[in-house]
Amino acid sequence: MNKFAITMGDPCGIGPEIIVKALQKQPQYINSAIIFGNAAMFNFYRKKLHLAVGVHEMKTHLDFQKGFCNVYDPNPVLLDRFKIGQINALGGDCAYKYVISAIGAALASEISFITTAPLNKKAMHLAKHFFDGHTEIFAKLSKTENYAMLLWSPKLKCIHVSSHISLIQACKTLNTARIINVIKLADSALKKLGCKKPRIAVAGLNPHASEDGLFGDEEKKIISPAVKKCKRLGINVTGPHPPDTVFLKAYEGRYDIVVGMYHDQGHIPIKLLSFDTGVNITVGLGIVRTSVDHGTAFDIAGKFQANCDSLLQAIILGRKLSK
Amino acid sequence: MNKFAITMGDPCGIGPEIIVKALQKQPQYINSAIIFGNAAMFNFYRKKLHLAVGVHEMKTHLDFQKGFCNVYDPNPVLLDRFKIGQINALGGDCAYKYVISAIGAALASEISFITTAPLNKKAMHLAKHFFDGHTEIFAKLSKTENYAMLLWSPKLKCIHVSSHISLIQACKTLNTARIINVIKLADSALKKLGCKKPRIAVAGLNPHASEDGLFGDEEKKIISPAVKKCKRLGINVTGPHPPDTVFLKAYEGRYDIVVGMYHDQGHIPIKLLSFDTGVNITVGLGIVRTSVDHGTAFDIAGKFQANCDSLLQAIILGRKLSK
Repeated sequence: MNKFAITMGDPCGIGPEIIVKALQKQPQYINSAIIFGNAAMFNFYRKKLHLAVGVHEMKTHLDFQKGFCNVYDPNPVLLDRFKIGQINALGGDCAYKYVISAIGAALASEISFITTAPLNKKAMHLAKHFFDGHTEIFAKLSKTENYAMLLWSPKLKCIHVSSHISLIQACKTLNTARIINVIKLADSALKKLGCKKPRIAVAGLNPHASEDGLFGDEEKKIISPAVKKCKRLGINVTGPHPPDTVFLKAYEGRYDIVVGMYHDQGHIPIKLLSFDTGVNITVGLGIVRTSVDHGTAFDIAGKFQANCDSLLQAIILGRKLSK
Repeated sequence: MNKFAITMGDPCGIGPEIIVKALQKQPQYINSAIIFGNAAMFNFYRKKLHLAVGVHEMKTHLDFQKGFCNVYDPNPVLLDRFKIGQINALGGDCAYKYVISAIGAALASEISFITTAPLNKKAMHLAKHFFDGHTEIFAKLSKTENYAMLLWSPKLKCIHVSSHISLIQACKTLNTARIINVIKLADSALKKLGCKKPRIAVAGLNPHASEDGLFGDEEKKIISPAVKKCKRLGINVTGPHPPDTVFLKAYEGRYDIVVGMYHDQGHIPIKLLSFDTGVNITVGLGIVRTSVDHGTAFDIAGKFQANCDSLLQAIILGRKLSK
């Protein structure tokens, strides 16, 4: 198996705990994972959770030793300086530096994909790294603009035409070229994930997909032309569908993925069905990046209650996408 | 039990079938329900479905006979003129007239509430009745503007600040006074439905409820002031909450109802969880009106496959709300 990266995210959140739990549950990953994070923090959770395999603190990305948990720390900090369960600049600074370092390794082809544990935006901003989240860091460093957020869950998948902008901006900036790109990204990602001819459903923007223009004209003017263009390209795509039933139809198995027009259109149904087990995939980057679909959960950090299922699923999908 | 109305909706849809099935399943309703619809169509389904109780064709709203299924038809049409399973002007015209007649009976206090079976907007428009749906007919005839659509399902409820307008209009017309009204309507409706001190969660408009203004300012400028005002009025209300997790929290039992900012915010999660069993309640009208949460389903009309659970639930809620 090729090497891949797991970034620890904010060391004061549940990141280190879920990484240890994931390696405990699926020990075969130990011989290919490089953990970008704080070695002392990893060791703390490793001992508390009784993971028998020891830690090797890597001197470079390439200093990998089989039979150990390999941790590369680009920003060493003593364990007692961290405040577990609290938003603070140190945690945000570390989380940012782990990601930057892993992206460097990916761009140098030293690793095949990156799975990220959660960081906290406020903590990152306290440390003066002004990004909205992982996705924006990856996009900037890999110099990509044509990317999209794909939320994956076992029974429902949605890719988003827009994400971290206001709803009114999402309406105002909706355009045919972007929708075409996102449909293509969905088609390509699902094929890599093993779906031979993905059935793609494009959601409308307005209630009932505007009912022939009664409530808005974006379906007719912007979305339909994108669907038609992609059909001509041979993609198995339909729509625009009424948003309030298309997710149910996809969930029932009639479509493999929904193309959502804005952040909450896809996030509301997927989080409702699959909280803690969903995966957030950034598609269209030069680098394969998958992520847990939950936050740092400071309220339960250090309490050994965190669930590593989303992280394990993110690793499985990262492997498929990077092949 | 006080008399109440069930309107047949479009006679060419599944309306007459689900009414017969509902009365068969809960025969106690036969002695208080007035069916506003086509008597011959009702009789057709009654015989096919082997409902033993006969039909009494009422001459006026007041000509009720116990021991029969009482049908009042304001617009008699011969059975063979209907095209079951097809969108056509005759079905739309009848559906409209049944509702108008039932509203007249409610305004005259001859019935205590109205439960509506589905009509089809296109069919109604073909018949030159240019309404968006039941809700708008009720609002016009009862001369009300301060009403809202409440979607009810066993595990999740949502009331909507706006409904049948484009998404960009929903964003542009969002205002504090309307949100306050809708929070009050939610509080009052849930109390009538048996919830002593409803826990009301108000959703934000933007992704992550804008994260302190990062993606939009409606939360700070418009929604928060409404929540604060209602708290001062003694209502148990919180928010604005991130839209992509508040429905999950409500579903898990932490809130009794969500106040949604636009049609699909509430419709997507509720239809996903409760297709065919949800109820659509118009609150704030002078008349109590509950409705099935599904359409005319022309594709299965006349095939005896329709499910009457939503209609029965709508009757139960209508009774509670009208007490």
